[in-house]
Amino acid sequence: MRLSAEAVAAATLDFQRRFGNRAVTSDAVRAQHAHTLTWIENQPPDIVVFAESESEVQDAVKIAAQHRLPIIPFGTGSSLEGHVNAPMGGVSIDLQGMKKIIAVHPEDLDCVVEPGVTRKELNEYLKSSGLFFPIDPGADASIGGMVATRASGTNAVRYGTMKDNVLALEAVLPNGEILTTARRAKKTSAGYDLTRLLVGSEGTLGIVTKITLKLSGLPEAVSAGVCPFPDVESAANATILTIQSGLPVARIELLDEVQVRACNAYSKLSLPEQPILFVEFHGTEASVAEQSERFGEIAAECGGGTFEWATKPEERTKLWEARHNAYWAATTLRPGTKGISTDVCVPISRLAECVAETKADIEASGLIAPIVGHVGDGNFHCLPLIDMSSETEIANAKAFITRLVERALAMEGTCTGEHGVGQGKMKYLEPELGKPALDAMRLIKQAFDPLNIMNPGKIVSFGT
Amino acid sequence: MRLSAEAVAAATLDFQRRFGNRAVTSDAVRAQHAHTLTWIENQPPDIVVFAESESEVQDAVKIAAQHRLPIIPFGTGSSLEGHVNAPMGGVSIDLQGMKKIIAVHPEDLDCVVEPGVTRKELNEYLKSSGLFFPIDPGADASIGGMVATRASGTNAVRYGTMKDNVLALEAVLPNGEILTTARRAKKTSAGYDLTRLLVGSEGTLGIVTKITLKLSGLPEAVSAGVCPFPDVESAANATILTIQSGLPVARIELLDEVQVRACNAYSKLSLPEQPILFVEFHGTEASVAEQSERFGEIAAECGGGTFEWATKPEERTKLWEARHNAYWAATTLRPGTKGISTDVCVPISRLAECVAETKADIEASGLIAPIVGHVGDGNFHCLPLIDMSSETEIANAKAFITRLVERALAMEGTCTGEHGVGQGKMKYLEPELGKPALDAMRLIKQAFDPLNIMNPGKIVSFGT
Repeated sequence: MRLSAEAVAAATLDFQRRFGNRAVTSDAVRAQHAHTLTWIENQPPDIVVFAESESEVQDAVKIAAQHRLPIIPFGTGSSLEGHVNAPMGGVSIDLQGMKKIIAVHPEDLDCVVEPGVTRKELNEYLKSSGLFFPIDPGADASIGGMVATRASGTNAVRYGTMKDNVLALEAVLPNGEILTTARRAKKTSAGYDLTRLLVGSEGTLGIVTKITLKLSGLPEAVSAGVCPFPDVESAANATILTIQSGLPVARIELLDEVQVRACNAYSKLSLPEQPILFVEFHGTEASVAEQSERFGEIAAECGGGTFEWATKPEERTKLWEARHNAYWAATTLRPGTKGISTDVCVPISRLAECVAETKADIEASGLIAPIVGHVGDGNFHCLPLIDMSSETEIANAKAFITRLVERALAMEGTCTGEHGVGQGKMKYLEPELGKPALDAMRLIKQAFDPLNIMNPGKIVSFGT
Repeated sequence: MRLSAEAVAAATLDFQRRFGNRAVTSDAVRAQHAHTLTWIENQPPDIVVFAESESEVQDAVKIAAQHRLPIIPFGTGSSLEGHVNAPMGGVSIDLQGMKKIIAVHPEDLDCVVEPGVTRKELNEYLKSSGLFFPIDPGADASIGGMVATRASGTNAVRYGTMKDNVLALEAVLPNGEILTTARRAKKTSAGYDLTRLLVGSEGTLGIVTKITLKLSGLPEAVSAGVCPFPDVESAANATILTIQSGLPVARIELLDEVQVRACNAYSKLSLPEQPILFVEFHGTEASVAEQSERFGEIAAECGGGTFEWATKPEERTKLWEARHNAYWAATTLRPGTKGISTDVCVPISRLAECVAETKADIEASGLIAPIVGHVGDGNFHCLPLIDMSSETEIANAKAFITRLVERALAMEGTCTGEHGVGQGKMKYLEPELGKPALDAMRLIKQAFDPLNIMNPGKIVSFGT
């Protein structure tokens, strides 16, 4: 399926004619566009085009389609499953130049943005409006990339995932046409839910060029804190009870003692080196106080404590920065290694069991694999740190991950709560959903993209 | 596309062989299965099959596919846009015999049900668990039907629509295979969102046979009441302010003075005959009191009042029954007429304008058309009552509806907030979403259902 060097050269010429010096073929830029936070090998595209408008995306897609050249949309490169790799070569369309915040409608609690806007840029822009965009995957990802992977993160337990926070999309289809998926109304029953079909489609059906997002009101009051537990199981049990009792916790994050140690070193904290929950409550002064008190009771009941509140905003920021840097902190535990990201998500009733079994498996396997998790959703990551020059270590880690996924599936869970399938999780999709689901996805892919040029080799593959 | 009488007879014989006296061809049963709460003419299927299990649905689908006979899934027949009509004949698969509540997982706040369970049956079953299923379209619709139309209703402003409350589905595909769309985990990024693709697909892609639903905790406290306003515009303005100020109102429903008059007569109430808002708040005792007080202030600011609280549960029930019977009440305003349902939904900032202009249009057109609305979502229904024997009246009503839809579209709204497209709104889809969206829907339909046997002639049409 990779084009001949001549065919690539011909396509490159067309891109250069249209985009001038915004069509780049240097090794460094190509490699950078295949670089993701992943252990999967770097597979650079043949060329990178920096698009600055929807019509430029259309032109780039049309040129690629004419040459049958694979197209890989690029946001900030913070995806974790090889989504921006170019296994068959092709053109990476870099959307970071599309940074317009087209409209903010405070009265409707929504906004319209281009895909290259990052979540931090958007929230910075919204600062004075009393509104914010709550989805927070940690990395300062682009909104387009977050749409593509159906991102979620720490706030999802309260505010939902990208599927819940996108009202409408515009996307350039493989044939160059512009698809509008919905209007700006808050709800609709107008035909198939094309919005939700594109959310999570990882650039395999089209390139998202305009996004209408729901916004939320900034909470009147926020309280956050840290609660240590004797073991991961009791921390998970406290999480389960919190969710079951209907406490509208905004964030509830587990870090195991290995991860806490890493965060202490990396972020210069002095957290107790045992499993902890980071929690945050949003609401009115009164409701936040009520929620905090109830959570304190639940934690104590599960053997946790003492709860420490971060009362000042700067303390809260420091805590959450440490949480967001958990990935980087983890990788310092074994310098020179790579972290292989995992992302299982199980029904909350099975969480304690799943985390505890995984912890035991890590120990039995002799791995260093810190655990962090958005446990309010039943979602956790454990990150085996692997010397990529050792085939034994790689094989050991891969076997561990397969067991982890099988464990989650046996508990009615999923192999990926929020990172997406990309290249890394393709093999788990059929065990998880069965052949009819894979066939259905393949049919959709073929219907949208008969030439198979949109990010081929991701999610499902077809053709040759 | 309608089969010959001989072909239908051959198919009927196969259905009778497999289903015995649960394959019915009597006129009464056929007509009843095309009867919906709609002004669209009754188009009965050739045969009705009463399925009692997923494997029976599979068998029925296989027989139909073999004969190329259209298949129309049937829940309770409470849809409003001709969804259960059989414009090309075919077999109606009645799913009311599939009433198993397969599992309730209180610890995960979810349950698994068959499609024939109605929302009231489910809530009755859940009564002692402290949980409830919040989606309430008024009618005691089947859960399968609610999935199919992406139903919402009075609670959607707080609890979302069916798209937000379905975790996973099983469906029999047109080829007889069983599709599983997702696992029971609370979130997932495992490939295309097949769950959301089926929610709202109106039986055109497959027949939903198993539904995993999110449940919510029964609120500790509920308060509800009625607030009159001098005109619909000020009621809409109070709604807008309520939503914008972030009040988590559970229900906020507008009835105009025409509808109030009808409800007073039909439900034996003595509400002030002016535009009113029905509101309901859910939460703890303290938060409900706080919400009610803040709403009272907003209402007063917009010229509304005096607010009357329904403190006793039986008063609340009476109010909401009246709201739910609004459709029936409305039809008594002009006995012998039919109500043509409308369902526009606009961004909330445009609601007051849209309702006021519509009200003026009703008056100018000489129509009797009461207005009720889930105004917290920007969604309202107005119901022109039409003498179906008068071509002038029909033409007048149709012209009014076209203007209403055009008005909503011009305000970035949709022709259908919750009823679905069915037969009645097909012509508005392209003006609303554009040709690429319709093409995409058609491609999906063709990919799933190449024989075009799944509820043909609904949402999008293709082929002959």
